[in-house]
Parts: sequence; C-alpha cells; structure tokens
Amino acid sequence: MTVTDMLRAHPQAVADTDAVARCIDECLRCTFTCTSCADADLDEPDVQELVVCIRRCLDCADVCHATANVLARRTAFDPQLGRAVVEACLRACRLCAEECERHAAHHEHCRLCAEECRRCEQACADLLGSIA
Amino acid sequence: MTVTDMLRAHPQAVADTDAVARCIDECLRCTFTCTSCADADLDEPDVQELVVCIRRCLDCADVCHATANVLARRTAFDPQLGRAVVEACLRACRLCAEECERHAAHHEHCRLCAEECRRCEQACADLLGSIA
Amino acid sequence: MTVTDMLRAHPQAVADTDAVARCIDECLRCTFTCTSCADADLDEPDVQELVVCIRRCLDCADVCHATANVLARRTAFDPQLGRAVVEACLRACRLCAEECERHAAHHEHCRLCAEECRRCEQACADLLGSIA
Amino acid sequence: MTVTDMLRAHPQAVADTDAVARCIDECLRCTFTCTSCADADLDEPDVQELVVCIRRCLDCADVCHATANVLARRTAFDPQLGRAVVEACLRACRLCAEECERHAAHHEHCRLCAEECRRCEQACADLLGSIA
Repeated sequence: MTVTDMLRAHPQAVADTDAVARCIDECLRCTFTCTSCADADLDEPDVQELVVCIRRCLDCADVCHATANVLARRTAFDPQLGRAVVEACLRACRLCAEECERHAAHHEHCRLCAEECRRCEQACADLLGSIA
Repeated sequence: MTVTDMLRAHPQAVADTDAVARCIDECLRCTFTCTSCADADLDEPDVQELVVCIRRCLDCADVCHATANVLARRTAFDPQLGRAVVEACLRACRLCAEECERHAAHHEHCRLCAEECRRCEQACADLLGSIA
Repeated sequence: MTVTDMLRAHPQAVADTDAVARCIDECLRCTFTCTSCADADLDEPDVQELVVCIRRCLDCADVCHATANVLARRTAFDPQLGRAVVEACLRACRLCAEECERHAAHHEHCRLCAEECRRCEQACADLLGSIA
Repeated sequence: MTVTDMLRAHPQAVADTDAVARCIDECLRCTFTCTSCADADLDEPDVQELVVCIRRCLDCADVCHATANVLARRTAFDPQLGRAVVEACLRACRLCAEECERHAAHHEHCRLCAEECRRCEQACADLLGSIA
C-alpha cells in the first residue's frame, strides 16, 4: 500500500497525483525522523549544543504532520490554504536541515534527519510549482 | 493557570506576550471547537450538506494545533516560520468561519464554531502585525 | 465559549457532560503547558538535568492532544477505546507531574506544569469512573 | 532512510528494534491511510452510510500518530506508558478495520484502509508481547 494507491482510490481526481503523493510521503517520513532526532539529541552528552536542533526538529515534525493531513484531504481542497501550509512546511524543513547539517559530522541521526528534511523541502518546492 | 503565566515563566522573554498568548489561547480553543463541530456535523441528518464544513473544520483543527505548538516554543524562535504558520492558520480559520456561517442558522455548533474561528482569525491577524 | 457549550450543541447527548468537558478542558491546557515546559527546559542553563522532563512533557502533550480529540467526538463513541485512551493519558500525566515536581523548586514553568498535569491526571481518573 | 536506520542511530539501544520499527512504520502509514479514507468517505454519494467509518478513521489517525511519537522516543522510555498507548492503538485499529471491512466491497479506499488497520493492529499486538 502506497500513498499513491490511496489518492487513486479517492473519488476526487487529483491533477498532480505524483507531486502530491511524494510531498505527503516525505512529510510522513519527516515527521517521524524529526521526532526521533529530537529525542536522540536529548540522549547525547553534548545536549547543550543541540538545543536549537531539538527546537527545529519539534517545529518541523508538527508542521509536516499538519501538512500531510491537509494535503491528504482532496474534498473541497483550497489551493490558497494548500500553498500557505506547504510554504510553512518548506520553511520548517529548510531551517531544520540547516541546523542538523551543522551536527551531521558528529551525529548520524542528525545526518539522516538533514537528508530527510532536504528531501521534504524539495518535495514542497516541487508541489508549490503545481498548486494552481 | 493561563497561557500568559507559562510564557512569563519561560526563560526567554517574549516581546509581545499578550498578542502571542492570545493567539495560542485561541488556537487551542479553535482546535477543540473545530474537532467537535466536525463530529457534530457527522451526527446531523443533513450530513450531506455539511461535507465541506467537515473538511474545513478538520483542516482548521490541524493547522491551529501546529500553530499553537510553534508559537509556544520561544527558544530560537524563527520569525519567518512563525509568520508562515500564522498566515496559514489565519487562512484556515477564515475558510472554516465562512463555511460554518452558512450553517449557523440551523446548527448551534456551527454558530459557535464560526465565532471561535473568527476570534482565532483576528488573533492571527493581530499577531502578524507584531512578528518582526 | 466553553467546552461544555460545544458538547451541549452536539446532537448526541453526553451522559456525563461535566466530567467529559472537564477532561477535555484539562487535556487542552495540558497539551499547551507540556509543550511550553519542554521548550522552557531547553532554554535553561541546566538543560542536561532536564532531559527526562523534556521527554515526559513531549509524551504528555501528544497523548493529551489525542485524548482531547477522541473525547470530543461523541458520534458512535466507543467506551472501550475511550477508556484505553484516558488510561494512557492518566499515566502520561502522572509521569510528567512526578518529573516536573522534582524541578518545581528551581523552575516556575515546571511548578506550573506539574500542577496542570496533576489536574489533568485527576480529570482522567474522575472520567474513568463514569465511562461505562 | 528507514525507521530502523533512525532507531539504530539513536544513542539509546532498543532491545527489540524490529518490533518497534515495524509498529512505528505501520502507525505512520495508518495515520495517513485513515486521514485519507475519512476524507474519501466525505466525497462519496452514500456519505450518510459512512458516518461511523469517518469517526473510526479520525480516532485511529489521532491515536496512531500519538503512538508513533511515543514509540519514537527512546530516552527514558516508560514501558507502562508504552503499553497503555499501544493497547489504545490496537483497539483503535481494530475498530476502524471492522468498520472499513463493512464497506470494502463498495469502496476501494475502505478496502485499503481496512488492510492497513489490520497490519497496524498486528504490529501493536506483536509489540505488546515484547514491551517488558
């Protein structure tokens, strides 16, 4: 079962199924990855250096979760709200990626999280090009 | 205990405590009100007429919840992300208010929900004026 | 507008409106309080001592939010799921209160958070007595 | 990037990485699938017949999301809270699966959602056997 399968089973046809499905999929992964990275940060001996990272991860997880939900709903989809949410998500992912990249050399969870945030940021950027 | 008490107990001073506290407070109320209104809609005999209302309520609840969380975090607050999230929230509240107002004469829960969404929309607009 | 007003406007009559309304209300407050306390912890010079507190706060916020949502929905309410969710919430609140109480003398946000978690724990316990 | 990769990058060793990773993974998928199915239900001509299904899907999405978050956090993991949350999740998934199965013959999204809920229910049951 994939995100695409569910979008195809929805009575409402989606104009750009691939871009929407990819953005939802990355938001789901990014929600988990950021939640996990924030918690891994807490368990590191240098937690004091990771305070901003934790904050960025928690914001990113919250915004990605809301974005996945708004995009998952196709009934009476409002493009202006869709754009506003995806723009906030792109910003949250970029901020989190930038911070995690600063710790990527020392913490594998930050390296993985930065990569995921960059993928989600790109999926948001791609989708913004196709939301009317 | 109020939102203001918690913001004052935070080591990070908030420039515009009242506007932030009010926006968080309305987002919390609006999250519940929209969750409740969507469910009350489901239980109405004319649910078919309330489909758009349910969708607007669910989106609004998700976006308000994320907004409350992002605003509650004052450590390394990013004004650009703050603005993007509050703008999305304002849009979600306005859409939901407009739809609930169409049903306010027939359903008390829609009337209450429309009022709450308008308060939250206003709190978002007021806060946008003060986020640097 | 109060939680009770929305429950009364719902087409589904709630047997124990006061207990349900109080539990939802405390869950909403506790979601915010725990989100705020976790972030305030991050900003303290002794963050290293507050790692468990942050973890407890984040769990408590997530579980309280889900509990508020499940309780807000009265259409086809399932008492067994209601009980299971409220039991998890009671446990999350107790754990968070116990940890925050350890820091209450040094951090006002922990003191306020512990108080809120105890109120929410009590509201959960009271509601468990009345869910069939 | 997989859930397992993040759990392995966490400083806290997880005793039963495979069972935890599988449960988190199914909770993430189930959160989306239920959000999508609830919205697809709204768009069906027979929405009146799908009211219970929508309610079950919304509860299941909320509980799965909270469960994924609690399980993702390994720092100071509390087994009793872990069990309580996974038990609530198992119940939410079973209820949603039972309802979606009633509509699986007429709606592909209900068929897919029922399958996902059953997988998540099983992952919860398997994990309960291994949480101390």
